[in-house]
Amino acid sequence: MSVSTVAATDQQSVCAPLPVLGQDVTVPLVTGGEVTYAALDYAASAPALQRVWDDVAAYAPYYGSVHRGAGHLSRLSTELFENARKTVAGFLDCRGTDQVVFTRSTTDSLNLLARALPAGCQVFVFETEHHASLLPWRHAQVTCLDAPRTPQQAVRTLELALADRDPYGPALVCVTGASNVTGELWPVRELAAAAHAHGARIVLDAAQLAPHHPVSVRDLDVDWVAFSGHKLYAPFGAGVLAGRADWLREAEPYLAGGGASRGVARRADGGVDVQWHDGEARHEAGSPNVIGAYAIASACTALTEAGFDTLVAREQHLIRTVREGLAEVPEVRVLSLFDADAPRVGVISFVVAGWNSAHFAAALSAEYGIGVRDGLFCAHPLLRTLLGGDPRTRGECGGPDAAVRVSFGAGTPDEHVERFVTAVGELVRNGAKWTYRTENGRCVPSV
Amino acid sequence: MSVSTVAATDQQSVCAPLPVLGQDVTVPLVTGGEVTYAALDYAASAPALQRVWDDVAAYAPYYGSVHRGAGHLSRLSTELFENARKTVAGFLDCRGTDQVVFTRSTTDSLNLLARALPAGCQVFVFETEHHASLLPWRHAQVTCLDAPRTPQQAVRTLELALADRDPYGPALVCVTGASNVTGELWPVRELAAAAHAHGARIVLDAAQLAPHHPVSVRDLDVDWVAFSGHKLYAPFGAGVLAGRADWLREAEPYLAGGGASRGVARRADGGVDVQWHDGEARHEAGSPNVIGAYAIASACTALTEAGFDTLVAREQHLIRTVREGLAEVPEVRVLSLFDADAPRVGVISFVVAGWNSAHFAAALSAEYGIGVRDGLFCAHPLLRTLLGGDPRTRGECGGPDAAVRVSFGAGTPDEHVERFVTAVGELVRNGAKWTYRTENGRCVPSV
Repeated sequence: MSVSTVAATDQQSVCAPLPVLGQDVTVPLVTGGEVTYAALDYAASAPALQRVWDDVAAYAPYYGSVHRGAGHLSRLSTELFENARKTVAGFLDCRGTDQVVFTRSTTDSLNLLARALPAGCQVFVFETEHHASLLPWRHAQVTCLDAPRTPQQAVRTLELALADRDPYGPALVCVTGASNVTGELWPVRELAAAAHAHGARIVLDAAQLAPHHPVSVRDLDVDWVAFSGHKLYAPFGAGVLAGRADWLREAEPYLAGGGASRGVARRADGGVDVQWHDGEARHEAGSPNVIGAYAIASACTALTEAGFDTLVAREQHLIRTVREGLAEVPEVRVLSLFDADAPRVGVISFVVAGWNSAHFAAALSAEYGIGVRDGLFCAHPLLRTLLGGDPRTRGECGGPDAAVRVSFGAGTPDEHVERFVTAVGELVRNGAKWTYRTENGRCVPSV
Repeated sequence: MSVSTVAATDQQSVCAPLPVLGQDVTVPLVTGGEVTYAALDYAASAPALQRVWDDVAAYAPYYGSVHRGAGHLSRLSTELFENARKTVAGFLDCRGTDQVVFTRSTTDSLNLLARALPAGCQVFVFETEHHASLLPWRHAQVTCLDAPRTPQQAVRTLELALADRDPYGPALVCVTGASNVTGELWPVRELAAAAHAHGARIVLDAAQLAPHHPVSVRDLDVDWVAFSGHKLYAPFGAGVLAGRADWLREAEPYLAGGGASRGVARRADGGVDVQWHDGEARHEAGSPNVIGAYAIASACTALTEAGFDTLVAREQHLIRTVREGLAEVPEVRVLSLFDADAPRVGVISFVVAGWNSAHFAAALSAEYGIGVRDGLFCAHPLLRTLLGGDPRTRGECGGPDAAVRVSFGAGTPDEHVERFVTAVGELVRNGAKWTYRTENGRCVPSV
């Protein structure tokens, strides 16, 4: 990518999108013909960066068993795997003593942390969180905080809750960096300061933040950060939990098995004694997903080299295009927790008066080749808060109240969001061109 | 692969190896020059089948978010992911009511099952198991069984232990299909019959079996089977737990998060109520590793199409080459639990009198371009049983007693095992050509 690829016709589009797999894939329209697929569901899973794919493809013939293998490719793979940790640590601006544990996803990372909580740990989490942040704390005493309507209120709500707690026991705050529903940024630095002022720790769910914004563990002063490769343009089954070593070192290993165990011996009484590793390996039992970890490192490098200043500027342009386009359609209500000026990433959810969201999303796909998502986005309490006042909206496909979400990122060309804005206007103005029916719980074009 | 590719010079080599990635990779020799890398550490991790890579590469541009995505590629990816389940179920000859849960590895699969045990469950496991089978049962009452010296003794040992147990409580037997150290096949069908006769269930650790032999859940009559993609020529971070639905359905979800949760709502008291899914999704929270699951399905199809009869015949030829070659070197002692005629897969461990195993493995790599493994292979109690009588062996690199393991499979050409046999003979006869030293706990050539 170079400056020369800047679209000359649009001053605000400061660079071309990063090349991603699938950018030339065409899909059939129910109304006839084909169009290139507009992947606008990045918040669920983003396409692989071409660079990530190329790196994986170049490495794949050299893949080998890691750690104890004596062969050349085993040693190469081990080095590449351990270097991936360092790359991720750099990408997140970790402290020197932080651990970078490779998991399978943000969900897995937060479940790992949940299992590493000290005894008696209190957990504070806003009801607005994704279920992956809301639910893993099954064995802790959880305080679920009401949805705030401003970032300042979020900080005050947390401070009040923490002031109430036993100040001497361990406590953890879990907060998202960017909402997977509204795209709004949360005041992470301020929440971290509030947590620490009350002797609590904080974990940042960066699943939706890391693909869009630089994340500095030091600058935000968070204790842990979790994210997923598949939302960071590296969909090869790996995720990350990075942060303080102490709780992780003292916890029972997340998985029991090889890799995590340093020594295993039968006892005289017939039982088994185990010595576990202390470092990252403690929680990485089983053969590591080397390709997944390497893909994440490759994505971290690619995003860093592209420059977040440039990526953010470009994404803000796309966000304006969508928000301004939707604002021109009075039937559309964009879902926000904070006010309209709140900073956000490229994740926008909305409802359309008179339309069931499943029907609307199906029409965007079938008639425009646009892939969005409809539903409650694994954030049910938040959606209930946001949808609350709305009458039950219906289209040809029935179903419960839900929203439509459009989301995009570093690989999204202007044309995709422009097509989306046009499509929303046309659908609302003219209705769908096709008829739809419900099949296996999905809204699909009638044939 | 066709019959015409059969090596005309060797009647027993019934077909060519299946094409794998990395088969043309060359590595430098410390003594000068380069050779093609002989990957003989399949038991740790096997190279990707070319077919698997090609399938993944063809799919990658069509990758999309699964389940709730409304777009064309989301629906394609969802279909492909759910079809992967069916392919795996067919590959394992599952019962119609069995579930196929995608995990990240065998270790993960067995940890999942460990967390799904009913209260008060007793677990019976031989000390000879890999740590992934030996250690996950942290919250159960575990009976660790002594190493048997014949398959019949294994069955008798299990029967005696089960006869002693409370016959009314739940119980699980965990057993490997093929040892990751000796390659020996275990009498799975007989052990399953013994387990069931005593009201216990059985899970088969097929990590080392599935890549080499057909596995029929019905025929073996096992309740669950676990295996890893990365040993089945599909190293993309996914594994499988397949089998009976009841314990899985009744268990707390393995990971808490989106995908596993059907409905989440705040309660009047401020807490959160969760309804979990019943099917496979219950234990698959987070975005699934679609590429990993698809890669496993592709490998299952490729192995089935190649035909296990052919694959087994070819592998038996390679095993004979290695075992006959090693038998000609009196300093080599092959490690076996059962007798020399016991059926086995292509996994052979040995010690060499006068050599430290790390030194031997390092010389195989540096001087012959052969990648094997040295160590205790995440099966410490078994290795202690097998190594027991041996004097401490030493080479230029010191270190604790350990063994060398050579392992191979469907992608291994005859030349690799022939080179290995030649190398073992030369090293034992003439010693290493180079000098070695210990660096960061590894034995490496001195420079």
